[in-house]
Amino acid sequence: MIELLNQIDDPQDLKTLSREQLPQLAEEIRNFIKNFTNVTGGHIGSGMGVVELTIALHYLFEFKERDHLIMDVGHQCYPHKILTGRRDQMGSIRQKNGLSGFPDPKESPYDRVKTGHGGTSLNTAVGMAVGLKNAGINDGRKVVAMLGDAGLQEGSALEALNYAGVFDDLPLIIVLNDNEHGIGPSVGAFMKYFSKVRSGTIYRTAKGNFKRLTKVMESASPFVGKLAYDVVDRVKSGIHGLVPVIAPGVLFEALGYFYYGPIDGHDLPTLLEALEDCKSFNRPVVLHCITTKGKGYSYKQDRLAYHAGKPSKKITAHLPNEYSCQGGPSFTEVFVDEAIKMAEDDPTVCAITAAMLEGTGLVKFKEQFPDRCYDVGMAEQHAVGMAQGLALVGQKPICAVYSTFMQRAIDQIFQEVALIDTPVMFCLDRAGVVGPDGATHNGVFDITYCRMFPNMVVMAPRDGSELRQMMRLAMNHDGPTAIRFPRTRTPLENAELPTMSFKIGQSEQLRDGNHGCILAYGVMVYLALDVATEIYSRYGIDLAVVNARFAKPLDDSVLGREFDRQPVIFTLEDHNRAGGFGSAVLEHANAKGYETTKLEILAIEDRFIDHGQRVEALAMAGLDVPSLVKRIEERLGLHRAHAETEQPHETKAPRPAATH
Amino acid sequence: MIELLNQIDDPQDLKTLSREQLPQLAEEIRNFIKNFTNVTGGHIGSGMGVVELTIALHYLFEFKERDHLIMDVGHQCYPHKILTGRRDQMGSIRQKNGLSGFPDPKESPYDRVKTGHGGTSLNTAVGMAVGLKNAGINDGRKVVAMLGDAGLQEGSALEALNYAGVFDDLPLIIVLNDNEHGIGPSVGAFMKYFSKVRSGTIYRTAKGNFKRLTKVMESASPFVGKLAYDVVDRVKSGIHGLVPVIAPGVLFEALGYFYYGPIDGHDLPTLLEALEDCKSFNRPVVLHCITTKGKGYSYKQDRLAYHAGKPSKKITAHLPNEYSCQGGPSFTEVFVDEAIKMAEDDPTVCAITAAMLEGTGLVKFKEQFPDRCYDVGMAEQHAVGMAQGLALVGQKPICAVYSTFMQRAIDQIFQEVALIDTPVMFCLDRAGVVGPDGATHNGVFDITYCRMFPNMVVMAPRDGSELRQMMRLAMNHDGPTAIRFPRTRTPLENAELPTMSFKIGQSEQLRDGNHGCILAYGVMVYLALDVATEIYSRYGIDLAVVNARFAKPLDDSVLGREFDRQPVIFTLEDHNRAGGFGSAVLEHANAKGYETTKLEILAIEDRFIDHGQRVEALAMAGLDVPSLVKRIEERLGLHRAHAETEQPHETKAPRPAATH
Repeated sequence: MIELLNQIDDPQDLKTLSREQLPQLAEEIRNFIKNFTNVTGGHIGSGMGVVELTIALHYLFEFKERDHLIMDVGHQCYPHKILTGRRDQMGSIRQKNGLSGFPDPKESPYDRVKTGHGGTSLNTAVGMAVGLKNAGINDGRKVVAMLGDAGLQEGSALEALNYAGVFDDLPLIIVLNDNEHGIGPSVGAFMKYFSKVRSGTIYRTAKGNFKRLTKVMESASPFVGKLAYDVVDRVKSGIHGLVPVIAPGVLFEALGYFYYGPIDGHDLPTLLEALEDCKSFNRPVVLHCITTKGKGYSYKQDRLAYHAGKPSKKITAHLPNEYSCQGGPSFTEVFVDEAIKMAEDDPTVCAITAAMLEGTGLVKFKEQFPDRCYDVGMAEQHAVGMAQGLALVGQKPICAVYSTFMQRAIDQIFQEVALIDTPVMFCLDRAGVVGPDGATHNGVFDITYCRMFPNMVVMAPRDGSELRQMMRLAMNHDGPTAIRFPRTRTPLENAELPTMSFKIGQSEQLRDGNHGCILAYGVMVYLALDVATEIYSRYGIDLAVVNARFAKPLDDSVLGREFDRQPVIFTLEDHNRAGGFGSAVLEHANAKGYETTKLEILAIEDRFIDHGQRVEALAMAGLDVPSLVKRIEERLGLHRAHAETEQPHETKAPRPAATH
Repeated sequence: MIELLNQIDDPQDLKTLSREQLPQLAEEIRNFIKNFTNVTGGHIGSGMGVVELTIALHYLFEFKERDHLIMDVGHQCYPHKILTGRRDQMGSIRQKNGLSGFPDPKESPYDRVKTGHGGTSLNTAVGMAVGLKNAGINDGRKVVAMLGDAGLQEGSALEALNYAGVFDDLPLIIVLNDNEHGIGPSVGAFMKYFSKVRSGTIYRTAKGNFKRLTKVMESASPFVGKLAYDVVDRVKSGIHGLVPVIAPGVLFEALGYFYYGPIDGHDLPTLLEALEDCKSFNRPVVLHCITTKGKGYSYKQDRLAYHAGKPSKKITAHLPNEYSCQGGPSFTEVFVDEAIKMAEDDPTVCAITAAMLEGTGLVKFKEQFPDRCYDVGMAEQHAVGMAQGLALVGQKPICAVYSTFMQRAIDQIFQEVALIDTPVMFCLDRAGVVGPDGATHNGVFDITYCRMFPNMVVMAPRDGSELRQMMRLAMNHDGPTAIRFPRTRTPLENAELPTMSFKIGQSEQLRDGNHGCILAYGVMVYLALDVATEIYSRYGIDLAVVNARFAKPLDDSVLGREFDRQPVIFTLEDHNRAGGFGSAVLEHANAKGYETTKLEILAIEDRFIDHGQRVEALAMAGLDVPSLVKRIEERLGLHRAHAETEQPHETKAPRPAATH
């Protein structure tokens, strides 16, 4: 059999194949994905589930010049990348200087947007369809949004669904890739509805539904208006016709869409026919495809592995750790362990997340406290609003959301939490640069958006034991708190610095010195210690290191002292500069009249950091020992001294490292 | 007839009335609202529409000690406040030191939350209901969310609706106050669906819908699975039974809710019976009430007046203007006038807003370009995502949203716009303190959340002519821009300073001086001029005034010069300090090595500013001439000099004002 995939360098090549050849191509793509992800890791499941769908779309549409394809949560994009000229680069996916794990307009004209946050494809696609209409382009070209079922839990997707349903003419095709679950088990009414459609239990429950409906109607009949009476009459006279109430499309039909399906998303002839039919409409249509996430992938039982596989060969072997003592459990593991302990101690402690039970570690919490752990689906706004509600009736909610995804609920942090000082504990996992997922997933804005609201307490632990203490502190605080921690390991237990108990706003001096002070935030503390050690080792001068712990409120007594006594203060954070931790210190010092010219902010400059391993991404951002040492050398004039050792007044030769 | 309302100082008093007395009470409340809003102004329509609903709820539930009531968008709260002990204070509503126009926990235990942004009641209520369940409280107490139809366009509400639909037991009652329109005409599929339910055209369209459904089914039949075949069979055999497809509750039923209605929301006996029935369920139930917004209010034709009436007596007569030369058209009027001109010049210019056609002035744009103006409803996330889509197909979208509501779409600003540098122009109206609507509506975080993302250009015009120029500049910029302007008037045309053309990042020196410089942002420029004039008048010393125009990028050449030559630099902004304009200047100056100790940030400190007239709210925030003059006097040591005129070296007596 002739191999087909190696002939496809562009979707135009795909169109030269016969329809009968396409299933073979699908098989080849699946094997191809298995082979390269075995080496690279990456989001495997979503891509494997949409092989046929992607083939069918590129076979029938012209996505470069004519039609538009918007893929929700780019995880699905692997087959798309393979078919659009990037096959040979797939081995570099999610690696530094390699392909992004998501669609990226920088890579290909076939990628119109960069999507890592889910539920947004409909918004974009609706805009494009309306724009085409606006521009008078009415030549049958279509905008196709390819959306997973989990994406329909997201408020932005639901807003778009609501908005576009009223158009009679809009060249919009919504391909609903219903794979029964997003990252975690699907939740919510849409999901339950889909599950009924999928399982066929829809028929079995039909009569039950009917009885329920008439019961309500009849009990309502003494006072409902004429309209409802009429309905009751009709219902009474036509019982067997009630099936359509729960027919597959009713939800979408009620919202104004042509509904099409459900169809088998792995059956290419069916897919092609259905899509051709969809092309013929000039109004919004929903094509509901049932697919199997990770189809053809062997670890079928492991849902998480579907989502994001780990590389089976260790390709990160030669990468250095971020700081010297790393090696303990991940922050995520420490977080959930402590959350469980708190829940054991106090029955009002509960946990909320948004489609990230596994990612936040809360899956363990849920095992132990199934009724006190809420995965609201991809719905961060609801997660925060619901947390407020829980708090208002005396529950103690821990709201665990990735830093980058919490960007979706900033208005809820404002109105529902900060404004009335609601005691909600936010635990922002994946804060800082995350690594392979790149710019859409970096959590590098949360210090800014958390500290901008009054009443917020904003903090970051240096390690596992401090995370535990901060969670206890937050739990006992009668107001909102936000704790950020990164996607990395904590130091080994015996390598962690001892942690004394502390109060809100209290920092910690870890190393003394009088040539300057590094005021470090969160895990940057250990990096600061490594940097200070390196500076000492090179020049024999001591930098103080302070673990700031809090971005809000700041520890004024220590800041005042350090600004007073040090020649220079460096702030260090794994966060963008604008409005971040260093900015907070600067604002505070300025208001207090401290000598702010002593301050240098070490942070991510005003740009997006691309994918790579986390340590690589940190280095790209200048947050590694060599870059930081260089910055400090420059500021202290050490580098110049080092280079110009001939000069008599500035000879500070490297000395051996000292312990502290 | 004995007056009833004056006997009601608490909902307990209400319960002593007979059911037959309640309609009279409703009438009295309506008259009461008419009387006091005639003096105070305020959101009249929503309150007038829910008089009976509010009476019925307080008559049947115990909202202080037992049940919980969460009102979506607090506008509806007037009858609630009247019945919960605040009757005599209603005349102070939305005024400084008076009652808030929204529910406020500081005012009453009957107000659990502070809601000014819509669509959030369901999130809170679901959290409370889950929390009660969690706590094992199962004594029949309920959480009631009272939600307008427009609120159901909001993503957070839809997320909650999706989430809670799967619970079999949850003490949640959703009262859908369907008044046919929110602030503007309702949009979207939910609204269209409601409108069908309301109008009864549901029956007339039933057959059409059916035909459409079977057509799709039949055309799909060659390839749909067994499931769909079954449905088609059933459809064919039971045509007349299809009515329930578009029966009133189908949408909610499909999402898992008990649906109840629609009922007449002004018919008290019906309401009481329906609510009693709802109380008897222990699962989520939707009670759909049809009400008339502004019922009993005479300006029936004026939808906007319903929403927020202007006081008929001018109570602001003695309030000073914000700055001396004010009096021209509002920024909103200038904005829409210029937007229309741009749309006339370029057919690809289009406008988007989120339930704020009137508020943003775009209603005029829509009159002229009905097909190029999109009101997406209360759905800011969709507004921004859709703007991206429009831009990607070559349209030039102007996305006009209030500063405070844009907090809901920050993640879209991030991923959909800034990340791939999409040319979308954001026009953030109601930036700065807004006045009577208070803390939920103040737009005092937008500089921070706009400037934190790379690629953003962030600016604010000093007056109308500069707004026009900035819009032109933004339209010609190949990347995202954000322009903020306040809820106030521009200066009179002949009082506006002349405006030269300028480039992105270019500031403007308006007044020279060498005793210090006020670097002002947006409308604060005129305030700065007034302040500088006042300082000159008192002390005969000159402060330079620079119109910064841009918060990002900053004008480095002017900043460098002023930091170099001035003894002190004040930044001035109507925005919270954290991460704002002054913070941006401070960060920049620090990075450049300027003498940042010279800088003093004049901004809103870290607190929420309550309601009052805009000038009063500005004064509360310290942003008025007397407060600013005092700050500057203190910084320059003038105040002391003034007080200690005996000292020989510091005698600078007030001089008459000079023109400049």
